[in-house]
Amino acid sequence: MTTSLERLSSHACFGGEQHFYQHASTEIGLPMKFSVFLPPQAQQGPVPALLFLAGLTCTEETFMVKAGAQRLAAELGLALIAPDTSPRGDAVQSLPGATASWDFGVGAGFYLDATQSPWNTHWRMESYLLKELLPVVGQHLPIDLQRLGIFGHSMGGHGALTLALRHPGRFKTVSAFAPICAPTQCPWGEKAFTGYLGPDRTTWLEHDATVLMQHQPIAPYPAGILIDQGLDDKFLADQLHPHLFEAACQAIGQPLTLRRHAGYDHGYYFVQSFVSDHLAHHARGLGAAH
Amino acid sequence: MTTSLERLSSHACFGGEQHFYQHASTEIGLPMKFSVFLPPQAQQGPVPALLFLAGLTCTEETFMVKAGAQRLAAELGLALIAPDTSPRGDAVQSLPGATASWDFGVGAGFYLDATQSPWNTHWRMESYLLKELLPVVGQHLPIDLQRLGIFGHSMGGHGALTLALRHPGRFKTVSAFAPICAPTQCPWGEKAFTGYLGPDRTTWLEHDATVLMQHQPIAPYPAGILIDQGLDDKFLADQLHPHLFEAACQAIGQPLTLRRHAGYDHGYYFVQSFVSDHLAHHARGLGAAH
Repeated sequence: MTTSLERLSSHACFGGEQHFYQHASTEIGLPMKFSVFLPPQAQQGPVPALLFLAGLTCTEETFMVKAGAQRLAAELGLALIAPDTSPRGDAVQSLPGATASWDFGVGAGFYLDATQSPWNTHWRMESYLLKELLPVVGQHLPIDLQRLGIFGHSMGGHGALTLALRHPGRFKTVSAFAPICAPTQCPWGEKAFTGYLGPDRTTWLEHDATVLMQHQPIAPYPAGILIDQGLDDKFLADQLHPHLFEAACQAIGQPLTLRRHAGYDHGYYFVQSFVSDHLAHHARGLGAAH
Repeated sequence: MTTSLERLSSHACFGGEQHFYQHASTEIGLPMKFSVFLPPQAQQGPVPALLFLAGLTCTEETFMVKAGAQRLAAELGLALIAPDTSPRGDAVQSLPGATASWDFGVGAGFYLDATQSPWNTHWRMESYLLKELLPVVGQHLPIDLQRLGIFGHSMGGHGALTLALRHPGRFKTVSAFAPICAPTQCPWGEKAFTGYLGPDRTTWLEHDATVLMQHQPIAPYPAGILIDQGLDDKFLADQLHPHLFEAACQAIGQPLTLRRHAGYDHGYYFVQSFVSDHLAHHARGLGAAH
């Protein structure tokens, strides 16, 4: 692979480097942006990395600027990688429905490959992340692709859980903030899957974390999965359904730490409050330095 | 004073509360927004607080969402107060020049009271902060007005240094990130002071941190002032002039810790990298718990 990266900006941060990149994605067929935080330890050689998937309406900047994760990532020697949440730009703005709502189309890729026209041309976020972005960062940056964790928030929590379950061995550790745990049973998921995957609901099941966990023969992450959920999250009752994922984990013996936090909502003041626990969780599983 | 506060939103954060407020400001003559982080310790009684003044184009949200300060503030028991950077809204949008440039008018109040028309009607940020906002938060929230520190970034660093020097005893501690240290000698300051204070440069001197320090009879902050400055800051050479403030401090024996950081720029990746040191500096001076 000979993809070239255009570095849009770089910022010193906690002794490491916060970079923003753009590249011509062959999987998406359009330019895509992403961000990478490299800890100081990356100056000595490849470091383990966490892929963070953001929620609806977010971009490659959201997590890096709002989560306060770089402080501990710099201590632990973890790189952070944050892609955008969908294809963007003039080529897709004009697709019917691409920008009509905040929970579908632009900013709402749901981390899967669409099968339905017109979305199947560019909305290929799963292939983009697994087949292109991760190899590209491994090729160009001091990141150890054998030591990857994945986490995310809301739609990105759905992405983290489903990609971790759909690609065994690719990620050693997984966690999520307020993930969409059962998208086949919530309005956000029903809307997105209808648009991207079509009306046949059997095709949806392969992108539902709860269903995927139900079908595991043995616990895929024996060291445990960490999920944090705020109890004042206005999306909890209708959209997130962590109790369904919890039951699925319990049924097959998958260790899950599901922490329910009184008073916390869905936003990044919640995420930043617990991000250090997530970094520590991944660092343990990835054998990062501390 | 019987000003009422409208709470726009609240978010649990690190065991404390991140609030956003609006109130009808009599000093500004318009509604003003501000944000307050209350640490968990505020549930037991009044806590010391830091007033943070943001830079050009920022709002009451910028520091709270980008600086990652709440983690340590929650540990140290420090409240954080962040005002907006100028009057805003329909009533001022139409003033000639109010929105024509990013370094004057809306988003660029420079933390002083304008004397020139039309700015002298609403652009009264110094009186707003000292005579109204601080009393209001002391009246409505568990904040100890006897234990206040002040800090800020860029234009807000200018605000922090000048207000700390113009109002002896009001703030016990002061620090700044990449402050405009000599506004009478830089393009940003010359433009703002010409507009807000008029062509008579003698009136400008009372709002220049370096000049104010030169005129101190004795060191006003014997426990020391902390300033962090990135050496890759694109505004350093023309706009910030920390060496002039450094010389003024040296001349009167004011202890100053001016840290010059190779590689760091002017943005919030720089601010978040060193914000913990600033909170610790203020906590020591304010006798906060740790």
